Amino acid sequence: MTNAAPAQPAARAATLPDFDAVLAAAARIAPHAHVTPVLRAHSLDALAGCELHFKAEHLQRAGAFKFRGACNAIWSLTPDEAARGVVTHSSGNHGAALALAARTRGVACHVVVPEGAVAAKVAAIEAYGAVLHRCAATIAAREAKCAQVQADTGAELVHPYTDSRVIAGQGTAAMELLANDTAFDALIVPVGGGGLAAGTALSVAALSPRTKLFLAEPSGAAETWASMQRGERVTEFTPDTVCDGLRGTLGDPNFVMLHQHRAEVLKVDDRDTIAAMRLLWQRTKQIVEPSSAVALAAVLTRKDLFAGQRVGIVLSGGNVDPDALPELFARG
Amino acid sequence: MTNAAPAQPAARAATLPDFDAVLAAAARIAPHAHVTPVLRAHSLDALAGCELHFKAEHLQRAGAFKFRGACNAIWSLTPDEAARGVVTHSSGNHGAALALAARTRGVACHVVVPEGAVAAKVAAIEAYGAVLHRCAATIAAREAKCAQVQADTGAELVHPYTDSRVIAGQGTAAMELLANDTAFDALIVPVGGGGLAAGTALSVAALSPRTKLFLAEPSGAAETWASMQRGERVTEFTPDTVCDGLRGTLGDPNFVMLHQHRAEVLKVDDRDTIAAMRLLWQRTKQIVEPSSAVALAAVLTRKDLFAGQRVGIVLSGGNVDPDALPELFARG
Repeated sequence: MTNAAPAQPAARAATLPDFDAVLAAAARIAPHAHVTPVLRAHSLDALAGCELHFKAEHLQRAGAFKFRGACNAIWSLTPDEAARGVVTHSSGNHGAALALAARTRGVACHVVVPEGAVAAKVAAIEAYGAVLHRCAATIAAREAKCAQVQADTGAELVHPYTDSRVIAGQGTAAMELLANDTAFDALIVPVGGGGLAAGTALSVAALSPRTKLFLAEPSGAAETWASMQRGERVTEFTPDTVCDGLRGTLGDPNFVMLHQHRAEVLKVDDRDTIAAMRLLWQRTKQIVEPSSAVALAAVLTRKDLFAGQRVGIVLSGGNVDPDALPELFARG
Repeated sequence: MTNAAPAQPAARAATLPDFDAVLAAAARIAPHAHVTPVLRAHSLDALAGCELHFKAEHLQRAGAFKFRGACNAIWSLTPDEAARGVVTHSSGNHGAALALAARTRGVACHVVVPEGAVAAKVAAIEAYGAVLHRCAATIAAREAKCAQVQADTGAELVHPYTDSRVIAGQGTAAMELLANDTAFDALIVPVGGGGLAAGTALSVAALSPRTKLFLAEPSGAAETWASMQRGERVTEFTPDTVCDGLRGTLGDPNFVMLHQHRAEVLKVDDRDTIAAMRLLWQRTKQIVEPSSAVALAAVLTRKDLFAGQRVGIVLSGGNVDPDALPELFARG
């Protein structure tokens, strides 16, 4: 599958969010989202040669940071918009997060699900009360179905990572981490479409500009790395990675924000990501997705960059199907 | 394998510990042990029909509550005893916990390891700095080797669950839970040898006598259930359960204390235990051992006993080898 760039909703992408939007998001989602804990593990510090602070977004509602952005989008809707509902095309964590966030406000949620999506994730989206719309497994089919749902219902599109409301919401995770403690030398988040990464850049710039922002990206889907190298957005690539949450294409506003912030991308091989996932299991008893473990793997494979430093890592999600584990480990 | 009753160290078993011993243990281990968090999961509450509070001992040092008792034993030694070291026969969590606890005081630790012990657990014991002594996989061989190490080194035996210092230390987990909040209707802990169970009974009796104490026991190793029914200790049985931490025989002091407390034993089939382990994975992203998940399974299979109640559950340990998971799930 080649990932062509998804169409950008022009109105939302035209205005880049700023840190005020992150602050507003934090206030908006406070009644609904968890303030997630920060976990420590001394044996991992010893292994990494630096001091690791894990922001535990896998313990966020619906099991991932995605709930923050989805919740901000839902509670930003005008009453009229809320009455018409929302729609998105994501069979992963964003779909589940939007469905749960919509339920917190009694808003109708439509999720376009391509053929071949993971059954357990689709079941979670449905369990949160969303209306499913099936389509073929191409970007074109997903966007056509989305457009059709919008035309039929008047529902508002909430894009998984280019939507300004989503980016601002994702920024609240790093905001929580940095609000109490700005002594971090480095902060590492995974990058796929760039919603978490762009939101994090806003919080770092506003709260702790001396903290260097790193983006961990699977070597098999390293178009963000290529985009940053080239200074323009690379959109033609064929993702080949076990990190199912990081196969998407870096969004346009996301690229602009990350390029401007001079975030540094670290490429990580799947083998190292799975090893990091096993380490987190063994040393912290936490289940995280490969798409999260990639950030720890980035530190462990580039110890030279972080020696003796104070390092924040966002553990972005924990939605791993127990039955999928043997295959996952076999690919590691 | 038939589990004959292990020889009891008479001096230590003669005096049953009391709640003062738990308080003393809490003070003794405070500089070394974690105060573990209490976890909540609303979707599990909905499923169970009651309010669940999980005392997260899988996040204790060395990955299980066992560190509490081992640490109390180590820091109770006189300087002379400490100079001679300690010995135990456990290839599981107690062995690792004693090794780590001994390291906190610079005490030599000998662990007798039977043939066929799980390689990953033996490696952990060794990594914590213990001296390993191999022997055949019979109770007689283990005790003979233990006696030989004692004779050779003068090391003090620290039995995994009959030792008073160990029982008192294990009681500190429930003490922490109940110290701030005595509104629990029920508290459920797993039972194997009965160290955690007996220590918990001390804390419940002292801090919250209205809280009913339940012991969750695998149906395939339900000699505690049989002992409580018969009013005397049953020691002849052949354990057949996936809960490797709960295959031991209820100790004599443990039986006396639990019988006196009128703790109620709930038998749980392995199938339900594995289902509970998967649920904890999916809903809380926590890895716990089958020997811990048994306590949640006890609630979910006897919802009638707990409907609408406020229920504490001790998640006792989280040392699960990632590679062993497929076989574990296959047996569930």
